Amino acid sequence: MVQNMTYDELILRIIILLRDGKIKEFRSMIDELQPYDMAFLFKEMPEKHRARYLSYMTVDDITDMIGELEREFQLAVLHKVGKTKATLAMNKMDNDDLAALLEEMDEELKEQLLSSMEAEESKAVQLLMNYPQESAGRMMTNRFVWIPQHYTVKDAVVKLKSFAEIAESINYLYVINDSKQLVGVLSYRDLILGDPEDKVQDLMFTRVISAGVLQDQEEVARLIQRYDFLAIPIVEENNVLVGIVTVDDIIDVVIKEADEDYEKFAASGKAITFDTKAYVAAYRRLPWLILLLFIGLISGSILNYFEDTLQKVVALAFFMPMIAGTTGNTGTQSLAVVIRGLAKEEMNKKTIFKLIFRELRAGIYIGIVCSIAITIVASVWQKDLTLGFVVGSSLLATLIIGTMAGTIVPIILHKLNIDPAIASGPLITTLNDILSLLIYFGIATAFLHAL
Amino acid sequence: MVQNMTYDELILRIIILLRDGKIKEFRSMIDELQPYDMAFLFKEMPEKHRARYLSYMTVDDITDMIGELEREFQLAVLHKVGKTKATLAMNKMDNDDLAALLEEMDEELKEQLLSSMEAEESKAVQLLMNYPQESAGRMMTNRFVWIPQHYTVKDAVVKLKSFAEIAESINYLYVINDSKQLVGVLSYRDLILGDPEDKVQDLMFTRVISAGVLQDQEEVARLIQRYDFLAIPIVEENNVLVGIVTVDDIIDVVIKEADEDYEKFAASGKAITFDTKAYVAAYRRLPWLILLLFIGLISGSILNYFEDTLQKVVALAFFMPMIAGTTGNTGTQSLAVVIRGLAKEEMNKKTIFKLIFRELRAGIYIGIVCSIAITIVASVWQKDLTLGFVVGSSLLATLIIGTMAGTIVPIILHKLNIDPAIASGPLITTLNDILSLLIYFGIATAFLHAL
Repeated sequence: MVQNMTYDELILRIIILLRDGKIKEFRSMIDELQPYDMAFLFKEMPEKHRARYLSYMTVDDITDMIGELEREFQLAVLHKVGKTKATLAMNKMDNDDLAALLEEMDEELKEQLLSSMEAEESKAVQLLMNYPQESAGRMMTNRFVWIPQHYTVKDAVVKLKSFAEIAESINYLYVINDSKQLVGVLSYRDLILGDPEDKVQDLMFTRVISAGVLQDQEEVARLIQRYDFLAIPIVEENNVLVGIVTVDDIIDVVIKEADEDYEKFAASGKAITFDTKAYVAAYRRLPWLILLLFIGLISGSILNYFEDTLQKVVALAFFMPMIAGTTGNTGTQSLAVVIRGLAKEEMNKKTIFKLIFRELRAGIYIGIVCSIAITIVASVWQKDLTLGFVVGSSLLATLIIGTMAGTIVPIILHKLNIDPAIASGPLITTLNDILSLLIYFGIATAFLHAL
Repeated sequence: MVQNMTYDELILRIIILLRDGKIKEFRSMIDELQPYDMAFLFKEMPEKHRARYLSYMTVDDITDMIGELEREFQLAVLHKVGKTKATLAMNKMDNDDLAALLEEMDEELKEQLLSSMEAEESKAVQLLMNYPQESAGRMMTNRFVWIPQHYTVKDAVVKLKSFAEIAESINYLYVINDSKQLVGVLSYRDLILGDPEDKVQDLMFTRVISAGVLQDQEEVARLIQRYDFLAIPIVEENNVLVGIVTVDDIIDVVIKEADEDYEKFAASGKAITFDTKAYVAAYRRLPWLILLLFIGLISGSILNYFEDTLQKVVALAFFMPMIAGTTGNTGTQSLAVVIRGLAKEEMNKKTIFKLIFRELRAGIYIGIVCSIAITIVASVWQKDLTLGFVVGSSLLATLIIGTMAGTIVPIILHKLNIDPAIASGPLITTLNDILSLLIYFGIATAFLHAL
C-alpha cells in the first residue's frame, strides 16, 4: 500500500517497477503521490533512473512535478523529456511558475520555447512577464473559472465541468459583466447548494475584494490574510478581471519576505543559503562589513581625540566595550520592534509620536536600572567612586540616546520611502559605538580633574 | 452601492441606518461585508453606537465578526450581547478561536459559559484546550465534513447540503472507515464532476497526508506549505480523524513564528508591539541587556590584564572599536544564515560539516580582504608599519574566529535541542567582543618590543 510507505521504500519500489518495465503499476502508484513527493523522489533517485522515470510519467504528472522543483532541476527535466513533451508541459504549467522559469533561460531558448507553445498560453505568460517583479500581476495565474453574470447555476456547473482540469485547486467562481469587469464571486459550495435554475447574479456576493495588477505582493498577502481567502481576483485599473492569486503562493511570499527582513536586519547579504558557495557568500557579505569597518574607524578617531584623557586614566578603557556594547544592544532591540511594527501597522503622526515617546520612556527606565548597577560595580571594582559615577552617568545617557537612535533611524528611512530594514542591527550598533564613545569620553574629560 | 464605499462612508451610512431604525437596510448592507470589515467598523464607530450595531446583527454575523476581533473586543462583544446571544455565538464559533478566548477568562466565567453551551460544542472546545499550546490539536477545528467510505456521490452531496453552514470555508471531504480512521479525501470539485452513483471510495484519493494532534504547529505549517493544501486533517495516534487545520490559521502561524524569530534574534524581548507600555517593554528587555552588560565587563577585565600594553601604546585603543565591531558583525551575519537555515533544512552530519567548512572558507576570504584594507589604513594613519601589521593580522584572526563562533554556537544549541534562535545577534556580538580583544591584545603584546 503506497499510503504508508516511507520515501526510501517508495524509491526502491519505483526503481524496481522501472527496471521491470511495469508501466501500469508505476502509473497507479504515481497517481497516489503528491507533486511534492514526485519531485522529492526525482531528486533522491540515482541519476541513471531519472530519464526512465520521466518517460513513464504523463505530461500532467510532469507539469505537476515541475512546479515543486528548484530551478536547476526544472531545466534538467524540460531538457530530458524532449521538446514535444516539454512544450506540452509548459502549456499546462502555472503561468507564474513558468514566467519565473523562463526568466532564467537565455534569450534564444526562451524564444524557441515560447514560439512552440500554444499561442494563447504563450501570450498569457508573456503578459505576466511584463509586470514588475514582486507585483500581483507577476504572481497571478490564468487557471481559474469565470462566468458571465446572466448564467444559471446549471450553466455554471456545465462550464465548470468542461474546465475541470484547470479549475483544480480553487473553489471560487468569479462573475464578470459584458465588459469583463469583475462584478461578483460565488463559491463551489454555493453551486452545490443552489437550485439549478437559480441565477448566478442572485446568488453571488457583490462586494468582491480584489487587488490591482501593480500592487505589491506583500499588500496582496495582507489582504488574503486579513480576509482568510483561498484566492484573490486581480484586476486592471478599470476593474477588468485578468487573473487570480492563490493562497499557496501567498504563504511562499510571507516566508520569503520574512527571510529577506531577517537578512537585512543581520546585514547578512542577500540569499545566502546552505548551498551558497563560500566565495559567493563572502562577496555578498563584504560590502556591509567594509562599510561598517570604516565607520568603526570613526570610533577610533574619537579615541584619538581623547588620547590625553585615556592616557591619564587607562581604567576608562576597561568600560569601553561594556558601554559601547550595551548601547548597541538597546538600539538593536528598539530597531527590531520598530521594523516589525512598520511592516504591519498603519503609520500616522499619532502612532509615530506615541512610539517615539514610549521608546524614550523605555530607554530612561532601562538607563536608570543599568546605570545604577554599573555605578556600584565600577566603584567597587576600581575602588573609585568618581569613576563609578562617570561610568554610570555615561551609561544612562548613552542608553537613552542609543534607544532613540534605534527608534528614529528606521522611522526616518520609512518616511523617506526607503525600506527601513536597511537600517540593520550591525549598522545601528556601529553608529551607537560612535555616539557612546563621544558621550563617555566627553563626560570623563569634564570630570578629569576629579579622576 | 456598498461595494465601492470607503470605510468612512460605510460607518456613516450604518450610523444613519441605526439611528433611523432601518433594520432591513442594515441587514442587506451587512450581508455584503466580510467579517474583517464588520469587525473594523465595530472598532472604528463611536462607542455609543456599538450596542445597537450588535443588537441589529444576527448571531451568525456576531460569530463571524468575533473571529476577527482582538481579545479585549471579543470579551466586550460577548458581554454586550447578553448571555443568550453570547452562548449561541459561542456554539458557532471556531473551536480554536473559542479555546484561545476562554483561556483568557477567569475560571468562574469560563465554567459558566461552557456549561450554558450545547453539550457537544462545549465538549469539543474543552477537548481542544487539553492539547499543548502550539500543537496541531490546539489549532484544529471540528467544522469539517467527513463521510463514510461506503457513501455514493449522491449521499455525500446530501450530507454536505445538510451541513452547509459548517462546511463553509473548506473544499475537501474527508473519508473515514467504520473505526473512524481516515482512509481518503475527496474535493468538492470531485463531487461536482462525479456521477451521482459513483462510490466515494472509488473516487477518493487514498494517500492522505495528515498531521498528528501533538505535532508542532510549525511542522503542520511546513506540510501545508509543501503540499499547497487548503486544509490538513489531524489524526490521533491510531489514525482516527479528530479535526482539520485550515490554511488561514497557518498563515497566521507563519507570520507569528517569523516575528518570534526576529524578536529572539534581536534579543528584543517577547511580544513588544507598538501598544506595549513603556515599563513593560523595559522590563521585557532588561534581562538580556543586564546579562550582556556583565558579559561585556569581561571584555573590560581583559583590558585590565593588558593594562601595561595599552599604557605603552595608547594608539592600540583606537582600533579596538573597529576590531570588536567587525568581528561582531561577521558573527551576526553567519548566525542569521545558520538560524534561518536550521528552521528549514533537514540537518544531518554531512550538511553540518559542509556548512561549517563553507563558513570557515567564507571567514578566511572575508578576513583576508578586510585585513589587507586595514593594514594599509592603519599603517598610513598611524605612520607605523608594525602597528598596521599587528592590527591587520589581529583582524584576520578575529574575523575567522568570529565567523566560526556565529556558525558553531547555534549548531551546538540545535544539537542540544535548545532553540538556536536563543543565540541572538547581541549575544554573539558580545562573545565576539571578548574573543577579539583577547586576540588583538595577545598579538599586540607579543609584538610590544617592536611597537
